[in-house]
Amino acid sequence: MNKIRVTIWNEYHHEKKEGKARDLYPNGMHMTLAEKLADDGLEIRVATLDMPEHGLTDEVLNSTDVLLWWGHCRHDDVEDRIAAKVARRVKDGMGLVALHSAHYSKPFRLLMGTDCNLRWRNWGERGRVWTVNPTHPIAKGIPSSFMLEAEEMYGEFFNIPNPDDLIFVTWWEGGEVFRGGCTFTRGLGKIFYFHPGHETCPSYHNDTVIKVIRNGIDWANPAGYQFENPGHFRDPDEPIVNKDV
Amino acid sequence: MNKIRVTIWNEYHHEKKEGKARDLYPNGMHMTLAEKLADDGLEIRVATLDMPEHGLTDEVLNSTDVLLWWGHCRHDDVEDRIAAKVARRVKDGMGLVALHSAHYSKPFRLLMGTDCNLRWRNWGERGRVWTVNPTHPIAKGIPSSFMLEAEEMYGEFFNIPNPDDLIFVTWWEGGEVFRGGCTFTRGLGKIFYFHPGHETCPSYHNDTVIKVIRNGIDWANPAGYQFENPGHFRDPDEPIVNKDV
Amino acid sequence: MNKIRVTIWNEYHHEKKEGKARDLYPNGMHMTLAEKLADDGLEIRVATLDMPEHGLTDEVLNSTDVLLWWGHCRHDDVEDRIAAKVARRVKDGMGLVALHSAHYSKPFRLLMGTDCNLRWRNWGERGRVWTVNPTHPIAKGIPSSFMLEAEEMYGEFFNIPNPDDLIFVTWWEGGEVFRGGCTFTRGLGKIFYFHPGHETCPSYHNDTVIKVIRNGIDWANPAGYQFENPGHFRDPDEPIVNKDV
Amino acid sequence: MNKIRVTIWNEYHHEKKEGKARDLYPNGMHMTLAEKLADDGLEIRVATLDMPEHGLTDEVLNSTDVLLWWGHCRHDDVEDRIAAKVARRVKDGMGLVALHSAHYSKPFRLLMGTDCNLRWRNWGERGRVWTVNPTHPIAKGIPSSFMLEAEEMYGEFFNIPNPDDLIFVTWWEGGEVFRGGCTFTRGLGKIFYFHPGHETCPSYHNDTVIKVIRNGIDWANPAGYQFENPGHFRDPDEPIVNKDV
Repeated sequence: MNKIRVTIWNEYHHEKKEGKARDLYPNGMHMTLAEKLADDGLEIRVATLDMPEHGLTDEVLNSTDVLLWWGHCRHDDVEDRIAAKVARRVKDGMGLVALHSAHYSKPFRLLMGTDCNLRWRNWGERGRVWTVNPTHPIAKGIPSSFMLEAEEMYGEFFNIPNPDDLIFVTWWEGGEVFRGGCTFTRGLGKIFYFHPGHETCPSYHNDTVIKVIRNGIDWANPAGYQFENPGHFRDPDEPIVNKDV
Repeated sequence: MNKIRVTIWNEYHHEKKEGKARDLYPNGMHMTLAEKLADDGLEIRVATLDMPEHGLTDEVLNSTDVLLWWGHCRHDDVEDRIAAKVARRVKDGMGLVALHSAHYSKPFRLLMGTDCNLRWRNWGERGRVWTVNPTHPIAKGIPSSFMLEAEEMYGEFFNIPNPDDLIFVTWWEGGEVFRGGCTFTRGLGKIFYFHPGHETCPSYHNDTVIKVIRNGIDWANPAGYQFENPGHFRDPDEPIVNKDV
Repeated sequence: MNKIRVTIWNEYHHEKKEGKARDLYPNGMHMTLAEKLADDGLEIRVATLDMPEHGLTDEVLNSTDVLLWWGHCRHDDVEDRIAAKVARRVKDGMGLVALHSAHYSKPFRLLMGTDCNLRWRNWGERGRVWTVNPTHPIAKGIPSSFMLEAEEMYGEFFNIPNPDDLIFVTWWEGGEVFRGGCTFTRGLGKIFYFHPGHETCPSYHNDTVIKVIRNGIDWANPAGYQFENPGHFRDPDEPIVNKDV
Repeated sequence: MNKIRVTIWNEYHHEKKEGKARDLYPNGMHMTLAEKLADDGLEIRVATLDMPEHGLTDEVLNSTDVLLWWGHCRHDDVEDRIAAKVARRVKDGMGLVALHSAHYSKPFRLLMGTDCNLRWRNWGERGRVWTVNPTHPIAKGIPSSFMLEAEEMYGEFFNIPNPDDLIFVTWWEGGEVFRGGCTFTRGLGKIFYFHPGHETCPSYHNDTVIKVIRNGIDWANPAGYQFENPGHFRDPDEPIVNKDV
């Protein structure tokens, strides 16, 4: 069985400055994710905003099975050209796990076709993630609910298209709910959005959160699908029914 | 009851030249649609590609409840700026009925986030439209199946996101099937795609086709929804649960 | 425009005894609902468990467009024969608005095919209903969220099939969430489940709750659909494609 | 990795008599399926209608991960008690692959809540199965379309609930279409319906058909999900939010 080639992309901004983000994620959230996710089934690389081409050269993208994307306050600093390349690769089959504020990133918005805005509040309040689709592969081994000790509240109305599958709904101490774990398909690419991960909150030290992301990688992995690249093409002028295609 | 303000947009290209398209639609497909759809519930305007701003000024778009879009070979001649305005208006609530090759138009592709390509063939072969969702408002009064005497074949794989509702599936004489009547929601805008309407085919003289489009207009009409424009905003730093908002 | 013929069915048990249920709903919850829902578009009847045939004779069912069902603790006292008749009528086109604990009623469970169980707690705690599908007809005129001052908590995992449309998600003071407003289709019948309405809670005195139920009636109304009753039948032994059926 | 424990259930009626069914499936369709599906990942048993308890004792059902069900003309001879046990086991997590006329079997109808009727015709005409959801696990390795040389036509309207996922749509020589490959979830059980397999047609000698069924077994396999059995239970009278459950 081939390893899944994962690239973890991070804005890597807040964690460089002194403060809570750096205390929690001293080498950046991408490095914490890389460590926590490490296992024999994955081949993990990282890439960050400030690298040349944001670390997302053609060579990197073309050898990535599943891309994790974490962004929050520097979405606008992502070059349009590169955002478009990422969206293109997803449509061609690369899986995308969009974390936390990646809902507002350029590639995600290009793929959704909506504004992807939402209600938010940053107290670091408690959230409880409820599993509403227990037989979905991304819920494998996840309990009926689990607590986020402190997170940024993201709440409804979440301006996304109706998801293919709604897997998790989060409850917030302050009074909101959020469809915070859901999936989409775009072309040959599978997309999983999962909300935990504010930079000053410890969610990526939560084993259940990591397990959900790990399941998301398995689910989004395109390996093994040999569907021909769908195209826009003219069929021959005779009935396909007579052919063995 | 207020009338639904409908704008019918047409590329209006093929029908200007001598030939089958002009024979079938002497004043353009938009005018045929306007005549066939005319009733007391609708206030209909038309707009075409060659008008200034393609006929889609802010004033027109802002006073349109439901836009019909027909395009086929001149998608690239639609200015990006205007395509973006149309998509924006849909996300803000304007209904969109995307006809025939509008699946490949700029506004539709912006809203879908996929390539929207498909398999096609132009014989003018027979198609049979089957109703697979008989209780959907767009299927109201539509029989279990109806014939298209001659149409351009559009077939699977149709590279769209999973639709919210699949209403019609078309069978083709040559051997294909097509999810040719389906809906999507983007922001506050409702979108209905319906495939009949090749310029050299008589589909807009087919009463059942017209009835489907008329149902689509009713369904996509945003009038009466007072949902606040969803925004991306910070909630106050106290629990909403204590408030009567 | 014909009036929609609504029958409101109530277990009518708790409100007969002294106490909070009778204080809130002195003539039964069915009568409160009948009064609150009364308008020119509806022709309303009521029926209760203790009537002969539970008030659901063939004559009543056959002249009902939309049935509202409220039950809670006497599900088992509904005769199987009558539960089956109700489910049959839904499959033949009658709309069903299933209220509160109707999720656990015999007709609803027959129609769902699942156990329809859930997590519950009866404090009369606060709940906040969030609209997650603002363009759905049942959300017409409903705000982005509204408060239930006191309700019985119903929480996930709610053991239903994936709904066709998820419209409302409820937040609970005690820590749960609930997919409490959602739709299903079974045959030609449209089903809307909506959770508020514990007998000791004032939800049916809440205008927004009533408006949601009123929208649900409009949505579930089968009038105007002339789709042939789908059957299991043998097609003639010649290709339908050659026929104008 | 544990093997998936598969039980193949067959009515085993037509193949016992001389004729085409026996020529194609000399030891019964269940034996052909067992041979064709045999691989290292599966542990396969068979069961038939005429065995005691139809071969579906508690011991067999409780040690089955995925049940394949083939029935056609003797649905009524399946005991209600056993049909109910099968449906119960599905709701508790056993996967179900419903083949051909199993759409009309007692367990499937109990799980769907609809009549599951359809249009049919038995010429043994050609059908072409089109993949409309190429990234679904059940479509893994399946081409964009494949031919059924001769099959019983099953056509729309197929009176099922809206499926969770529509994977295959079949085109028929005679003029119909059919949503013939689709999935449902009921409780903890995953259900895949797939139409090919009339007893006088060679579909289970078609490698692509077998591969689809094999994918369906993998997809429906509940192993690895440790979700607690969802129940109907009262939560303690204190907020769950304060607990680490």
